[in-house]
Amino acid sequence: MENTIRELATTSPKKIVLLVMDGVGGLPREPGGKTELETARTPNLDALAARSECGLHIPIGHGITPGSAPGHLALFGYNPLEYPIGRGVVAATGVAFPMKAGDVAARLNFATLDASGAISDRRAGRIPTEKCAGLCELLKAVSINGIEVFVRPVKDYRAVVVFRGAGLSDAVADTDPQVQGVKPLDPVATDPKAARTVQVTRDFVAQARKILASQSPANGILLRGFAELPHIPSMKDLYQLNPIALAVYPDYKGVARLVGMEALEGLADLDAQARALPTVWDKHDFFFIHHKYTDSKGEDGDFDAKVKEIEKVDAFLPSVLAMKPDLVIVTGDHSTPAVAKAHTAHPVPFLISGEWARSDGTSKFGERPCSRGTWGIISGQMLIRIALAYTGKLKKFGA
Amino acid sequence: MENTIRELATTSPKKIVLLVMDGVGGLPREPGGKTELETARTPNLDALAARSECGLHIPIGHGITPGSAPGHLALFGYNPLEYPIGRGVVAATGVAFPMKAGDVAARLNFATLDASGAISDRRAGRIPTEKCAGLCELLKAVSINGIEVFVRPVKDYRAVVVFRGAGLSDAVADTDPQVQGVKPLDPVATDPKAARTVQVTRDFVAQARKILASQSPANGILLRGFAELPHIPSMKDLYQLNPIALAVYPDYKGVARLVGMEALEGLADLDAQARALPTVWDKHDFFFIHHKYTDSKGEDGDFDAKVKEIEKVDAFLPSVLAMKPDLVIVTGDHSTPAVAKAHTAHPVPFLISGEWARSDGTSKFGERPCSRGTWGIISGQMLIRIALAYTGKLKKFGA
Repeated sequence: MENTIRELATTSPKKIVLLVMDGVGGLPREPGGKTELETARTPNLDALAARSECGLHIPIGHGITPGSAPGHLALFGYNPLEYPIGRGVVAATGVAFPMKAGDVAARLNFATLDASGAISDRRAGRIPTEKCAGLCELLKAVSINGIEVFVRPVKDYRAVVVFRGAGLSDAVADTDPQVQGVKPLDPVATDPKAARTVQVTRDFVAQARKILASQSPANGILLRGFAELPHIPSMKDLYQLNPIALAVYPDYKGVARLVGMEALEGLADLDAQARALPTVWDKHDFFFIHHKYTDSKGEDGDFDAKVKEIEKVDAFLPSVLAMKPDLVIVTGDHSTPAVAKAHTAHPVPFLISGEWARSDGTSKFGERPCSRGTWGIISGQMLIRIALAYTGKLKKFGA
Repeated sequence: MENTIRELATTSPKKIVLLVMDGVGGLPREPGGKTELETARTPNLDALAARSECGLHIPIGHGITPGSAPGHLALFGYNPLEYPIGRGVVAATGVAFPMKAGDVAARLNFATLDASGAISDRRAGRIPTEKCAGLCELLKAVSINGIEVFVRPVKDYRAVVVFRGAGLSDAVADTDPQVQGVKPLDPVATDPKAARTVQVTRDFVAQARKILASQSPANGILLRGFAELPHIPSMKDLYQLNPIALAVYPDYKGVARLVGMEALEGLADLDAQARALPTVWDKHDFFFIHHKYTDSKGEDGDFDAKVKEIEKVDAFLPSVLAMKPDLVIVTGDHSTPAVAKAHTAHPVPFLISGEWARSDGTSKFGERPCSRGTWGIISGQMLIRIALAYTGKLKKFGA
């Protein structure tokens, strides 16, 4: 079907906005209660839902809880099972590091090790990003024969390392044991072809420990998510779109760049996103706008705070509608119910609004009202196809 | 799944009617308004919907706007992506030309060329079918070494040419540039295997221009949709059915014949279709009844006229029900909203009525009421399977 879509894709002057509230799907706090979205006062979203086609979507598959990267790939119309994206690649592209084919990237978390070498804090006291950047500078002293090593700060205690050189492979297991009180794991190949990369990683870890030995609290490193660049066709190639991402968090800019989107830098919050939108409006036809904190508050288990984040997006919505987009999708990349404190596999509410949408009179943007909307429950990967069709961006199939 | 259906298929005396209003799916004329189908006064369809299982179907896939041939293939239970049908084949089978394996057919449109050879009217003033037939007679004078050439009139300025001979291929690009003011394109191979066919086509076009030189307004030809016969299993083979088509327009008889249906000739309108039905009732168990003008009026952008065509089909419905069919499906092959003046990808309303249908009390046959029906939104390719199952024509799977 992907090839059929590519063959049918055509350009049109119409503009599509995809507004993502990360992890928006939720659950009631108590049996019989309302979800976060159903609880939130969202007059703008409710008014839009009433003139939209509504439904719930399943990003990857029934019962599959999406990670952030595959959840977004699905919204962009890709089958995440066909395009696995490693955490290292998400981190590297998120900070705009220009990865090349054959590079291997891994997430690097600074950590605190005790005198025995065991992990006493997996997050090194959540050091600030500036401190993290200074440590990354120190790691420039690492030297490995035949290999270029790049270390870049991401956010707080999180950084990314990229190895460049011949014969590398991402088939290396995490050195992060995910628990404290034990030593970091030795790098191990999950496939014989990664023997060289394991040597390189051992060498890197050993040199880093020496360089960081006198630092406090970040005197050690943990590596996870070794990954090579996947071969994903761009949204330009697949859909003839010229897309742009307006996201605050690096990881979402990273996923957007993996599908060939331009991603604006320097956006701090929804206000900045609202101010930026008019400045890029004329040059693009697809606008991915991402709000992270609905998910963060869900992960924190803070129901009320997640409700407030949804209400912030509701207050932001008029600045999107003021641009008079031809089609608007509002949805999430997955569910993050506060009661679960984690991503879950629950279907995610969505609305599709536009001139060609058959409004279904959904009275409130919420999980249960949307489940009674036109679309029922569909694959999240279909949303962009519907958007393209409703804006004249897919030609007729067959005679 | 196709093989499973074939293995489970069995005969039963029960009779199925598939009543297709071409392009019936629509959109409101103004925001918040009703679609064509929702606007139409359809007491017979509404009464049937109330005792039916209702829903919306997607003929080919989300976001895919169906052409007429693939839209119908889907209703007959075939995956249109697996069985691409070229325009030339649709035209040839539509006029009951007995195509053979290896034949190459193309749609031939008579056109007006100016003194410089540029196209001044792509439709030659929409000459009547009789005039078209006369021109096709003249083209019998074409003679190409080793090749049999058949030219048959279709309707108005439209005809079809079939080349028969060894070593032909349909990998030839259209000579119709789809715009006026330029010359017809030279035939070009899209694959080296079509070299011989390109020679044959050039020869045919050159001889046709000489033959038509003194004609007015149709002094030139445009070719499009070069196509070979696809290998589609018949409905007899797949479903053990003995089907018949009651259609007015040649193209729909053509698609029906491609899946092995008998197709009645000489039906001029719904009245003729109503009179013909009892005459073929005893000999068949599947009846495909097609009404074209819902689509035509949609393509014209004439909302009110499309409403009237739907009301004509509503008035026709009692003559179908009078035969006491065991199962009736009423639907369309795609949407053609008058506001779009074109086929669109919108889901299409359907009803399934019969002794085994769990009536869902849908109050009105329309897009929004059907979206709240039993089936929600399903693939159009599933409708015939449900019909077969509800009439005892598919055996149990497994012990």
